[in-house]
Amino acid sequence: MSTTVHPVLLNGCWAKSQATSTFQPVNPTTEQPLPGTYPVSPWGEIDAMLGIAAATSAEMRGFPGTRFAEFLEAYANEIEARADLLVETAHAETALAKSPRLKDGELPRTTNQLRQAAQSARTESWRVPTIDTAAGIRSMLGPIGPVVVFGPNNFPYAYNGIAGGDFASAIASGNPVIAKGHPCHPETTRIFGEAAVAAVQATDMPSGLVQMIYRTSHEDGVRLVSDPRIGAIGYTGARHTGLKLKTAADAAGKPIYLELSSINPVFVLTGALKERTASIADEFTGSCLMATGQFCTNPGIVVVPTGELGEGIIAAVAERFAKAPVGTMLAEGVRESFSRGVRTILDAGASLVTGGQPGGGKGICFQNTLMRVSGPQFLANPHVFQTEAFGNGALFVVAESTAQMVEIADLLEGNLTGSIYTDTAGSDDADYVAIEKVLRTKVGRLLNDKMPTGVAVSSAMNHGGPFPATGHPGFTAVGFPASVTRFGMLQSFDAVRPHRLPVVLQNKNPGNVWRRVNGEWSQADVS
Amino acid sequence: MSTTVHPVLLNGCWAKSQATSTFQPVNPTTEQPLPGTYPVSPWGEIDAMLGIAAATSAEMRGFPGTRFAEFLEAYANEIEARADLLVETAHAETALAKSPRLKDGELPRTTNQLRQAAQSARTESWRVPTIDTAAGIRSMLGPIGPVVVFGPNNFPYAYNGIAGGDFASAIASGNPVIAKGHPCHPETTRIFGEAAVAAVQATDMPSGLVQMIYRTSHEDGVRLVSDPRIGAIGYTGARHTGLKLKTAADAAGKPIYLELSSINPVFVLTGALKERTASIADEFTGSCLMATGQFCTNPGIVVVPTGELGEGIIAAVAERFAKAPVGTMLAEGVRESFSRGVRTILDAGASLVTGGQPGGGKGICFQNTLMRVSGPQFLANPHVFQTEAFGNGALFVVAESTAQMVEIADLLEGNLTGSIYTDTAGSDDADYVAIEKVLRTKVGRLLNDKMPTGVAVSSAMNHGGPFPATGHPGFTAVGFPASVTRFGMLQSFDAVRPHRLPVVLQNKNPGNVWRRVNGEWSQADVS
Repeated sequence: MSTTVHPVLLNGCWAKSQATSTFQPVNPTTEQPLPGTYPVSPWGEIDAMLGIAAATSAEMRGFPGTRFAEFLEAYANEIEARADLLVETAHAETALAKSPRLKDGELPRTTNQLRQAAQSARTESWRVPTIDTAAGIRSMLGPIGPVVVFGPNNFPYAYNGIAGGDFASAIASGNPVIAKGHPCHPETTRIFGEAAVAAVQATDMPSGLVQMIYRTSHEDGVRLVSDPRIGAIGYTGARHTGLKLKTAADAAGKPIYLELSSINPVFVLTGALKERTASIADEFTGSCLMATGQFCTNPGIVVVPTGELGEGIIAAVAERFAKAPVGTMLAEGVRESFSRGVRTILDAGASLVTGGQPGGGKGICFQNTLMRVSGPQFLANPHVFQTEAFGNGALFVVAESTAQMVEIADLLEGNLTGSIYTDTAGSDDADYVAIEKVLRTKVGRLLNDKMPTGVAVSSAMNHGGPFPATGHPGFTAVGFPASVTRFGMLQSFDAVRPHRLPVVLQNKNPGNVWRRVNGEWSQADVS
Repeated sequence: MSTTVHPVLLNGCWAKSQATSTFQPVNPTTEQPLPGTYPVSPWGEIDAMLGIAAATSAEMRGFPGTRFAEFLEAYANEIEARADLLVETAHAETALAKSPRLKDGELPRTTNQLRQAAQSARTESWRVPTIDTAAGIRSMLGPIGPVVVFGPNNFPYAYNGIAGGDFASAIASGNPVIAKGHPCHPETTRIFGEAAVAAVQATDMPSGLVQMIYRTSHEDGVRLVSDPRIGAIGYTGARHTGLKLKTAADAAGKPIYLELSSINPVFVLTGALKERTASIADEFTGSCLMATGQFCTNPGIVVVPTGELGEGIIAAVAERFAKAPVGTMLAEGVRESFSRGVRTILDAGASLVTGGQPGGGKGICFQNTLMRVSGPQFLANPHVFQTEAFGNGALFVVAESTAQMVEIADLLEGNLTGSIYTDTAGSDDADYVAIEKVLRTKVGRLLNDKMPTGVAVSSAMNHGGPFPATGHPGFTAVGFPASVTRFGMLQSFDAVRPHRLPVVLQNKNPGNVWRRVNGEWSQADVS
């Protein structure tokens, strides 16, 4: 090829790609191509990375957690040293606001995640070390093997395959990573790659710890997730692609952690509306339109009571949506998908409240859009009204009674989040109990009087939920040490002589690691 | 049908089955049918059970752990009250020895498992309650929903769908169970059903807590594991059937915990052979022939050094195998499968050391069988030499060097266990390190100077391992509370008002539950 194509990150070096096809990212604000040209990696170079990753995984067995912690911390520093460049680049590639979103929100969140992951590695807290002195058996989680991480389009930093939560978790548990960047923001990903190489060198880690490609064919993606040399996969992105990868990984017996889609229902109860319709409308508008609605936790369905109160909040939100600036979307594909989602919901019988057309802002965009259906309409066709329209829009469902709200909750698919708004005086208490009982089983995170968009990096966070929000309801993609445990395999040591045990399972506990000893948690030595 | 067909357990009642076909168990010792006739349940009655299970699951939401603990303990007592009958019945159905195996081994183990599961429920230890006071987020595991448990042929008690480890774990986490007994021992399963009904009544639990069928078509099995009303599946049994169920469950997004097959490699190092060939031969013979080799953890491959020492242990084991009584197998299907496995391994070039023919004992049986291959033979054809021959036989692999042992270890599929025998003086230390480094990643439980057959019910047990031993290397089917967590979904509570939180996540901690509060484990109240 005549143009200069960016190399891929193979075994610590920027290696010329064997690609026979390439792509260029597009600036969504100008709708013009950005300068760089990036390779679509063929199987040959993925195969080489897999070999390196397997050898690296073997080499790192037995490395203490501190080594991974030091790498993660050095990497966070290297990222911060490139903050201005990362902000300029990601803004050009995604149209996300430089401030507060990229510079003051997502970038600090990303380095915070890397540092929290480092802390999990250093304290060995993700390992759940367990000692049964009577049986002479001890267990812990050990690294699962090379991890492949697919990053999504909507978080160029915090979920990037080479810098986000899955990446940080996979490294913290002692595994090499093969990252696949998202083709919407390859230059951002490349800069992370440079920071990662610098951190690998600074901390004397194996050169195969972090490898990276920008894109590959669907066929090679399927081959990658079912390769015997890998341990597990993290994927955040569209449901359709994710389910194809899941089928392949499942058949190969490879754990795949998915974050696929979610419409994040919000139930607003009568008392709450009586008390504070305007402020709830403000909160909802902020949450739903934040980053042009391109959040996994964007509230896409709002269930409200029929009558004056329900009409009141619909009108209040409609007014705010019409007035709010229309944001630029990440890519033409996102606009097309949003437009298709809106069309599907309207075709099924929803009414348009506001918006509904492309345009209204700069570059790739679509009007802030609200739709509505009645409770009976929803109940008659629950599947289609749960179509994900990923973007700056939502569907109001006007329920005739609390019992109908419960029925609606019962027909929801698995979601990342579910919210219930209640009044402060207690008049919604009984309704809350009835709805919560059903909603609790459908969502990973239940919120009360709070919109779901923010995902704190908390030890108690669940950024997960029942299928099809994810592939398994027991795991979270955010929060430490829980997200790290996903990339561990359980290793039991039965009658293994004391000096042959891993350090965290020996009697002495110089690092004060929390261990479950004979059923009780302890930081003490075992006598 | 003219014969009286045993009813199925539907919603707490023994209900006439809608079966159009039936089966009779066979006594493997006499090779004659046993008296009872049992139904092959059609979809209609499974569908009814699913509806009941879903309603029961909803009804039990919020039940404290003590209620499940009381049921499990009452059930253990009811089982003990039927011990003699269970022993007579299981012996007739499986040919397993009444004593010590059934009466003194498996039955006490089963009630012990139920009581340990009760303890997990009572202490809420399986929930991993996590509190982040700064973020205002709290999380715990909650019940995943109705669990379907498929029991295997080889443990009529301890892994029975209605009494074993998966059952106990699913109940301890607050879920109703639909049990599928194994058709080899339906009367044993029926007696457990009676004990379960008595325990449900005695502890005032919902009548849908435990339901049971004996058998169904493969097609309906597939339909059952992909039904939207279930939460998860536990399956222990043959790989072929398990993988079919896994494909269906995976496609439906239902977690399925499998225990499929394992050949449990044993590496015997030079120093160990110099020191104690005879005692290792005794241990191996006992482990390999126990219960006619019908253990998931039966050692099926033994890797030994070439030369005098390797020949010495092969001869010593051959002598013991030839002298040892030939046990009766569970069923004709087991003999056929074992015979086919032996034939496959011999056809691939292994030599027969001893045995190799049907017969040699009472009823359904096959001679104690030993085969051997060289290290290079194994390396040239690793897949076929890992064919599982489930029964009283094993394959010796004679390795030319430690390096070759490491190569062999590196080509092993995922297994439940792996053992390394070493001398006491330390001459095997370097070889141990080299082999362990590779073997550790291939097995769930690593043993040192110990045979793998025994599976202690220990908090540090891993009865699990990488695919294809199981479907996910992070989980164990044995040991509390770890096995219970499999049937939990992660539930995060974000900004939920204090009085609306589950009791175990509230500030006060009257039950002294171990909780992870701001990163540290504690039994104290949160202030």
